[in-house]
Amino acid sequence: MAKGKRNRGPKARLPRGLRDIGGVEVRATAAMLAKIREVYEAYGFEPLETPAFEYTDALGKFLPDEDRPNEGVFSFQDEDGQWLSLRYDLTAPLARYVAQHWDQLPKPFRRYQWGPVWRNEKPGPGRYRQFTQFDADTVGTPSVAADAELCMLAAETLEALGIPRGSYLIRVNNRKLLDGVLERAGLDPSDSAHSPRRLTVLRAIDKLDRLGVAGVRLLLGEGRRDESGDFTEGARLSEAQIETVLGFVTAGRASPGETLSTIADLVGTSAVGKEGLAELAEMGELLEAASFDAQRVRIDPSVVRGLEYYTGPVFEAELTFEATTTDTTEETGKGSGRIGRSERDDGKDDGKDDGKQMGVVAPTRFGSVGGGGRYDGLVARFKGQAVPATGFSIGVSRLYAALEALDKLGGMAGGDAAAAGPVVVLVMDPERRAEYQQMTMELRAAGLRAEMYLGTAGLRAQMKYADKRRAPCVVIMGEDERARGEVTIKDLEEGARLAAEIADNRTWREARPAQVSVPRDELVQTVAAIVEEKPGRGGA
Amino acid sequence: MAKGKRNRGPKARLPRGLRDIGGVEVRATAAMLAKIREVYEAYGFEPLETPAFEYTDALGKFLPDEDRPNEGVFSFQDEDGQWLSLRYDLTAPLARYVAQHWDQLPKPFRRYQWGPVWRNEKPGPGRYRQFTQFDADTVGTPSVAADAELCMLAAETLEALGIPRGSYLIRVNNRKLLDGVLERAGLDPSDSAHSPRRLTVLRAIDKLDRLGVAGVRLLLGEGRRDESGDFTEGARLSEAQIETVLGFVTAGRASPGETLSTIADLVGTSAVGKEGLAELAEMGELLEAASFDAQRVRIDPSVVRGLEYYTGPVFEAELTFEATTTDTTEETGKGSGRIGRSERDDGKDDGKDDGKQMGVVAPTRFGSVGGGGRYDGLVARFKGQAVPATGFSIGVSRLYAALEALDKLGGMAGGDAAAAGPVVVLVMDPERRAEYQQMTMELRAAGLRAEMYLGTAGLRAQMKYADKRRAPCVVIMGEDERARGEVTIKDLEEGARLAAEIADNRTWREARPAQVSVPRDELVQTVAAIVEEKPGRGGA
Repeated sequence: MAKGKRNRGPKARLPRGLRDIGGVEVRATAAMLAKIREVYEAYGFEPLETPAFEYTDALGKFLPDEDRPNEGVFSFQDEDGQWLSLRYDLTAPLARYVAQHWDQLPKPFRRYQWGPVWRNEKPGPGRYRQFTQFDADTVGTPSVAADAELCMLAAETLEALGIPRGSYLIRVNNRKLLDGVLERAGLDPSDSAHSPRRLTVLRAIDKLDRLGVAGVRLLLGEGRRDESGDFTEGARLSEAQIETVLGFVTAGRASPGETLSTIADLVGTSAVGKEGLAELAEMGELLEAASFDAQRVRIDPSVVRGLEYYTGPVFEAELTFEATTTDTTEETGKGSGRIGRSERDDGKDDGKDDGKQMGVVAPTRFGSVGGGGRYDGLVARFKGQAVPATGFSIGVSRLYAALEALDKLGGMAGGDAAAAGPVVVLVMDPERRAEYQQMTMELRAAGLRAEMYLGTAGLRAQMKYADKRRAPCVVIMGEDERARGEVTIKDLEEGARLAAEIADNRTWREARPAQVSVPRDELVQTVAAIVEEKPGRGGA
Repeated sequence: MAKGKRNRGPKARLPRGLRDIGGVEVRATAAMLAKIREVYEAYGFEPLETPAFEYTDALGKFLPDEDRPNEGVFSFQDEDGQWLSLRYDLTAPLARYVAQHWDQLPKPFRRYQWGPVWRNEKPGPGRYRQFTQFDADTVGTPSVAADAELCMLAAETLEALGIPRGSYLIRVNNRKLLDGVLERAGLDPSDSAHSPRRLTVLRAIDKLDRLGVAGVRLLLGEGRRDESGDFTEGARLSEAQIETVLGFVTAGRASPGETLSTIADLVGTSAVGKEGLAELAEMGELLEAASFDAQRVRIDPSVVRGLEYYTGPVFEAELTFEATTTDTTEETGKGSGRIGRSERDDGKDDGKDDGKQMGVVAPTRFGSVGGGGRYDGLVARFKGQAVPATGFSIGVSRLYAALEALDKLGGMAGGDAAAAGPVVVLVMDPERRAEYQQMTMELRAAGLRAEMYLGTAGLRAQMKYADKRRAPCVVIMGEDERARGEVTIKDLEEGARLAAEIADNRTWREARPAQVSVPRDELVQTVAAIVEEKPGRGGA
């Protein structure tokens, strides 16, 4: 194995934008996913798992550039020359699945799926090229009852994860409203000539949280120069148009009733606008009937996420408590990052000016952990007929970061997330491994995490190992102990330190010495008692 | 969305060798993985997650052909021109991780990881290009106590999944033994001139299960012609050499004591052979001390899995009950499939002759669900120094198939795997959706899976939908019910049929009518009672 290659071996490193995830996060994420699954199951969604890659053409038109298949997505050719791509979200594979199995599916089709997605983009702080999403979608119904239900699902999921009511908000908007406002402002969205300008408007609105009304006003008008001197071209709307758009965008700052009436005034007689209003009203009614009040779900016209993708209601799950974070919202929901990516593609924004996307360093609202909306056109690519659909997507590691900030991970996983290392049975005499193995088995049989030291180093290294593994204690049986028919159980320094943190140090020392010798047949009960006493250190 | 592309849309299909996994399997697999994790945690392993792809050179020399990076693995180039590959197992990424973080890691380093792996190979029945593995490895110790522990882990994992003792066997061999036997037979394995011939010997031994001693004898000699007339070239050993090898390979058929003494005779004075014997003896001692007798773990020299990869002990977890299966053992363990792939690569074997790999149609032992062994050279590629390591890998969907055959999935997942669909609240009057939504919420709050029908179809279609979703019952509130302040709860035909299967049909009908009307405020308790009575149909 060591022959030949030794001197010209590869360097052990990861491609940029990828990361290894350690034990604490893997455990807590697994517990988190299980909790989310529980809620989604209660709502009647069925799990589905699609493979990591698909035919590039099946993943569809939402690729950033179809002529360059490795742009935005990771692509490779099959041996028959057809292009394959790693999925960049879970919605495109769903559309393929639904189109493929349409006749056999119950309609509406309701599925949830979680798993990694990949984006071939420039990585940055907290912006990875592989991340995990957790989606729920209802396909095959135009009823906004399905959209309302996803808002409820989002709220209940966050609460099930321990985020208290009042610390999150599901913000709801409707693409049709903005279209109605733009139409009334003389920018008919059905006229494709206005399409690039409309995108600039969307980008401007998307920056409200960070730049405030004044900044957005500049971006809707001539443009804006940031602190670094970089200039972002504006949408060049007229003063009146700017006022109309800003009036709409900030309408969510009033009470829910006022918000609706402000929006009604702004969309006026626009057919599409009135449709959007009716949909919002119906969603509001359903949410109210199910006791989801404005503290949990609120209309907010400033929500514009991935609007080129959506056809009706859009929603965003936001955490409203303050936190210092440099994470991104890249992975938080369907279609998110689309606008951000476009910004990078046109070369006008190098990321510096992308505070909401790239995170901020001052304490601020934690921000988005998920989002979604209605996309009635996605399955039509295959079917040739419209198949209305709506979905909600959670950015899993973003949500993980939120739960970490709220200190909700330990409790959620029943202590598992904060699990200590195993009890380590030291090997005092390698000839007697069988005996140490036997003790290890006994500890495991009692439901304790336990292992015999498997290396070949001496006692000092073994203690260091146990400490590094965060073992609650080690088990020692040397010649002396054997002669007395006893075992010694020793608390580790780390264990002692942790315990001291939660109680008066002296009290603790008096109550329990740093090491104790007990008869061999009291091994299990003694260790169990020690493990139980340690905070955040559980059994298996 | 529907504009333009409609008529030249892509076909909704999956690349060959990939599959979608439906609700039943996703649920049961998640429960299965949770159970495996529990055991691995108890043994002291820590979870780790590495990304789906790595630098091709970091995945290493075990690629089938380094000059063609897309052969065997799926590869693509990063924008700086460097080759990336989807991982083909979880061991190569572990070696990279360990080499990268060696100084910070506790030693030995013990980690478990599960996740999909990808192989760019010709798909076949039950042979996919994406499948899931679940690995545990101990890196950084030469002690075979680590290997013995993995055998225990394998056995305890299978038992934790409900596979009874006696229905599985962990078969153990040691590469050094075979090397000793070959050395004594005049085929010194350290002489690279013998390397191709040795590989032919390995392939021959690997076919013992299917071809029997007579078939292996032919493959060790001049060669063998199968029923289809295809001829496989043999290893061209002498009669005496053949007898020696066959004597070794079949030594496991005797009692454990006899097996060891037969092997001892065969390896004689070979240094490497004696080392292998000593290692087996030490493993045996440890296993015995931990009460893993020959009913659970047994020495079997016919285990040759991935031997070009391993440097010491190798083991295979085999299910010994009979089952009809056409699944493959492709994904069952570290290094598996390596030999099979070589066979395809050299063009001498088109898969027809690959019964053990490709599955069989007659009832037979279920076969391998996992395996592993010691690979002391893998990390050395990076480090320039040997880092001894050993691991065990489970083929997850293969094991899933086994549990399905044993009917162990339902019980394991606490009924979750066999979960019925949600209770469906029908929408009799779309104007009253808020009311139906309210009922749905009440059912969920009581821990029941429930959903309001979200489509726009009529009553008949709604009933059909509920049936297709395997709903235990539907909730109906039409004008009549509303006038009386009641709701009607209706058992579905499918529900009735299922119930009838487990009890006398008439008894069941008498005990509970197909539908019942109750006061509105008895909705939840009535539905809960119905759901509870249905076998395999649980709450959320």
